[in-house]
Amino acid sequence: MKERYFDDLKAGYRVQSEPFEVVGKTIIEFAEKFDPQQFHLNAKSAERSIFKGLIASGWHTAAITMRLFVKTLNFAEGAIGLGVDELRWPNTVRAGDVLRVETEIVHLRPSRSKPHYGIIKVRNVTTNQRGEIVQTMLGALMVPRRAPDKTTRPQTTSQHD
Amino acid sequence: MKERYFDDLKAGYRVQSEPFEVVGKTIIEFAEKFDPQQFHLNAKSAERSIFKGLIASGWHTAAITMRLFVKTLNFAEGAIGLGVDELRWPNTVRAGDVLRVETEIVHLRPSRSKPHYGIIKVRNVTTNQRGEIVQTMLGALMVPRRAPDKTTRPQTTSQHD
Repeated sequence: MKERYFDDLKAGYRVQSEPFEVVGKTIIEFAEKFDPQQFHLNAKSAERSIFKGLIASGWHTAAITMRLFVKTLNFAEGAIGLGVDELRWPNTVRAGDVLRVETEIVHLRPSRSKPHYGIIKVRNVTTNQRGEIVQTMLGALMVPRRAPDKTTRPQTTSQHD
Repeated sequence: MKERYFDDLKAGYRVQSEPFEVVGKTIIEFAEKFDPQQFHLNAKSAERSIFKGLIASGWHTAAITMRLFVKTLNFAEGAIGLGVDELRWPNTVRAGDVLRVETEIVHLRPSRSKPHYGIIKVRNVTTNQRGEIVQTMLGALMVPRRAPDKTTRPQTTSQHD
């Protein structure tokens, strides 16, 4: 898969991820480690909750969204998360749901302190198989720029030394 | 452990979690599932990254923070996340770091649509063993209110029926 750089993007660019099925067992595994609450832990007790059934932790949805974002954008050397705003979970995620992430580049600029990097702002919208939005967020990330000589010469292995 | 309700809180209330050690193996496990980037996946390749070593995914830090928050506050019936703003990761988390979360209730009000619930806004600050801040966030959550008769009578098992 082609590796991406800051230089390959522009504001308004949109891309959609592959689908990802949320298996019920993984909802419980995630909850046991990170969000041990009855509506995430156990289908029976979740039935007595306000959700009337097992739902995924919002942080599980956020983590799945990161997986899909990272694999779709595939930045050379990786994307470094700086922060997130407006993270919302308007609908629940349940076992068997199939999620996709649509990423839009909403803003981008070169880094002021690190010449090898650019800062991008992205809006990630995560939807289920019915097109319902299960998560929205705005993320700021630092991503690598192509070194000036890289546009014409073969890639070297390090830009940081 | 005493279960907590909306009614037990007031603005300005602060509480600190127990410590939690971040084991290196779990940094890699989380990354393989949710954030497959070189500086989270493998100590060797992470050494060649801008971080000069393995670091935890910010989403892993967020998930650990949720665990510590949930266990410390221990809301009856659980706390339902509505959204998060100003999620930031000012310092990296590395294997062996010991994290704690300090929660401050910054605002609270009864739910307008659900009489059995209140809405709280919390600031969670996650620090490491050196007191460095590794994550900050503002979260909005829906938490249960005591039913009016619960202040004088023994608790019943359900408020939602």
